[in-house]
Amino acid sequence: MSCDFIAQANLGVQGLHPYQPGKPIEELQRELGVEHVVKLASNENPLGPSPKVVAACSAAAQDICRYPDASGFELKKALSAYLSVDAELFTLGNGSNDVLDLIARTFLQPGTSAVYSQHGFIVYPIAVKACGARAIVTPAKQWGHDLTAMAAAVEVDTKVIFIANPNNPTGTSFARAEFTDFMAQVPAHVVVVLDEAYVEFNDGEDQLDGVTLLPQYDNLIVTRTFSKAWGLAALRVGYAVAGQQITDLLNRVRAPFNVNSMALVAAEAVLADADYLAQSRAVNHDGMQQLTTGLEKLGVTFIPSAGNFIAAEFRGDVMAIYQKLLEQGVIVRPVGVYEMPQHLRISVGLESENTLLLQALAKVLGEQV
Amino acid sequence: MSCDFIAQANLGVQGLHPYQPGKPIEELQRELGVEHVVKLASNENPLGPSPKVVAACSAAAQDICRYPDASGFELKKALSAYLSVDAELFTLGNGSNDVLDLIARTFLQPGTSAVYSQHGFIVYPIAVKACGARAIVTPAKQWGHDLTAMAAAVEVDTKVIFIANPNNPTGTSFARAEFTDFMAQVPAHVVVVLDEAYVEFNDGEDQLDGVTLLPQYDNLIVTRTFSKAWGLAALRVGYAVAGQQITDLLNRVRAPFNVNSMALVAAEAVLADADYLAQSRAVNHDGMQQLTTGLEKLGVTFIPSAGNFIAAEFRGDVMAIYQKLLEQGVIVRPVGVYEMPQHLRISVGLESENTLLLQALAKVLGEQV
Repeated sequence: MSCDFIAQANLGVQGLHPYQPGKPIEELQRELGVEHVVKLASNENPLGPSPKVVAACSAAAQDICRYPDASGFELKKALSAYLSVDAELFTLGNGSNDVLDLIARTFLQPGTSAVYSQHGFIVYPIAVKACGARAIVTPAKQWGHDLTAMAAAVEVDTKVIFIANPNNPTGTSFARAEFTDFMAQVPAHVVVVLDEAYVEFNDGEDQLDGVTLLPQYDNLIVTRTFSKAWGLAALRVGYAVAGQQITDLLNRVRAPFNVNSMALVAAEAVLADADYLAQSRAVNHDGMQQLTTGLEKLGVTFIPSAGNFIAAEFRGDVMAIYQKLLEQGVIVRPVGVYEMPQHLRISVGLESENTLLLQALAKVLGEQV
Repeated sequence: MSCDFIAQANLGVQGLHPYQPGKPIEELQRELGVEHVVKLASNENPLGPSPKVVAACSAAAQDICRYPDASGFELKKALSAYLSVDAELFTLGNGSNDVLDLIARTFLQPGTSAVYSQHGFIVYPIAVKACGARAIVTPAKQWGHDLTAMAAAVEVDTKVIFIANPNNPTGTSFARAEFTDFMAQVPAHVVVVLDEAYVEFNDGEDQLDGVTLLPQYDNLIVTRTFSKAWGLAALRVGYAVAGQQITDLLNRVRAPFNVNSMALVAAEAVLADADYLAQSRAVNHDGMQQLTTGLEKLGVTFIPSAGNFIAAEFRGDVMAIYQKLLEQGVIVRPVGVYEMPQHLRISVGLESENTLLLQALAKVLGEQV
């Protein structure tokens, strides 16, 4: 009666490999018996939670038996006020990963294609392949998105283009004018997903804020997350903003209770806590300087980053460097799966954490020579 | 430059209507200005949360900035001990809704079909249609699943059969022997999903426990949830148990951080709280007696239920009865979307809540005559 269920699965799913997340602190403690661990592997906010968030979660704990508000009424109202966008143009997700999946499931199936860039966020290929769609991958340009090539790569069956700005794991970004030039070249029926998970850290000149462009482009979806600058990675909440038709479609596919109650109240609380965002940005700004200066001193090259992480390039056996850092209790992220086998992605931590990383790295590189 | 994006969406998505959840308490308060509201609309646990859960969430609040453990290591270990099943045979979901979606996304696409029953849980048609698969709906037999008809309905392109036991919203259930007879008739390559969201309330004789059948059937997936008897609806956590190949596939499609940290620790805490489950069952058992006795006195017929809810049948304009109950601050659930326009589904509440429902209903039916 036995059967090969792998062969029974959709073809796209058969070709999937699951996402490999950053090693959790507890796992390293279990595996290597290292006591003090610094995790700079998942682009998390090193600040710890806003006290207002902790208070909101504590109050919400009394209602754990009740389903979440399926419409996310209060959070959408708060987002609407914060971004000056109609509340009905939001789609809430279980992290922005969920929103990216919803977009793929809405527009992609066998016989369609999607465009994304080499070194683009790994969730794009997973979402595209899970739907059985064809991936069109454009080569990167100096580690970043080549927007001209991406527009030119659109084929007859292309439904969606995924773009991250800043991009993870490269940290590259582009300016507003480059993006509007790109949009002018993209056919009006092709949905452009502008993934702004790291937008709050991007303080470059001519910085692109996709939300301000929404009135101009019917085919634009901007996605954002509370997991990074807002410090709510544990709770899973992200969102899309788009036009009415696309929002209607995404909410048809969305599971009604996809965002849990804790996430809803926490996101609302942190949106109202302007100090927390300012502090997140300041810590990241200072930490980025500390890391880039430290890496330069060690003679390590890196890709200039507009996010809360930095992709550093190493010679020789990078996985051996990664492993030796682990043994010293420092978790960073190998990015071989991003076709960047000579890089390690280092998240910006607190000053003390960045110091430990730089010390550990100095030791490892010293031994290597 | 405008474009019809509805026409751009996958055909299955174009035909979707979003799930209509039970009216939240806050919404009724907003709309009707009713102060004291009894919600018996979403089959939630009326007990309130286990104190152990509240304590676990409070502790976890300090780690809100960190991503959840993507592997769900500790919860799977606890589930493994609780159910005597290998930890590697679990797939965790953002509620069991997520797990049902993962199953659909793994096996269903245009050109395939899935079987489910009339009056079956509404997430099955949504999940099937979202994937562009064809739905084969078998007529119910005395409101319940006609398992013989379901096995006979399998076609060449059928990949999945969805079965709920007990079923929501009818409350019907079947015995172990009926299910094993059914499994003997289903081709070995067709995946059978046995949705046991309400299994903890089912204390009938010859009760089916799907988990005990897993060693016998490679093609069986049992899904369960922490939203009902375990009282964690707000947090969203459910799971599937299945063989190794199917579990591998589901985890390929699963988003890595689909279950939030609060849900992980809360589920672990409540699994260890045997008193809570016992109390949930006792409250439901007593409340079900109170409701059935009360409905009989009012001359209202109902479908005998093995869940924590009861589908009661009314004459005349059922939506008017629903509305009049709302005006008295009692929320129940219309089930017209389940092809049951003459029924209202009433969740079992605390004794005082059931009393209020019965009083409000007496008043409404008295006025109706």
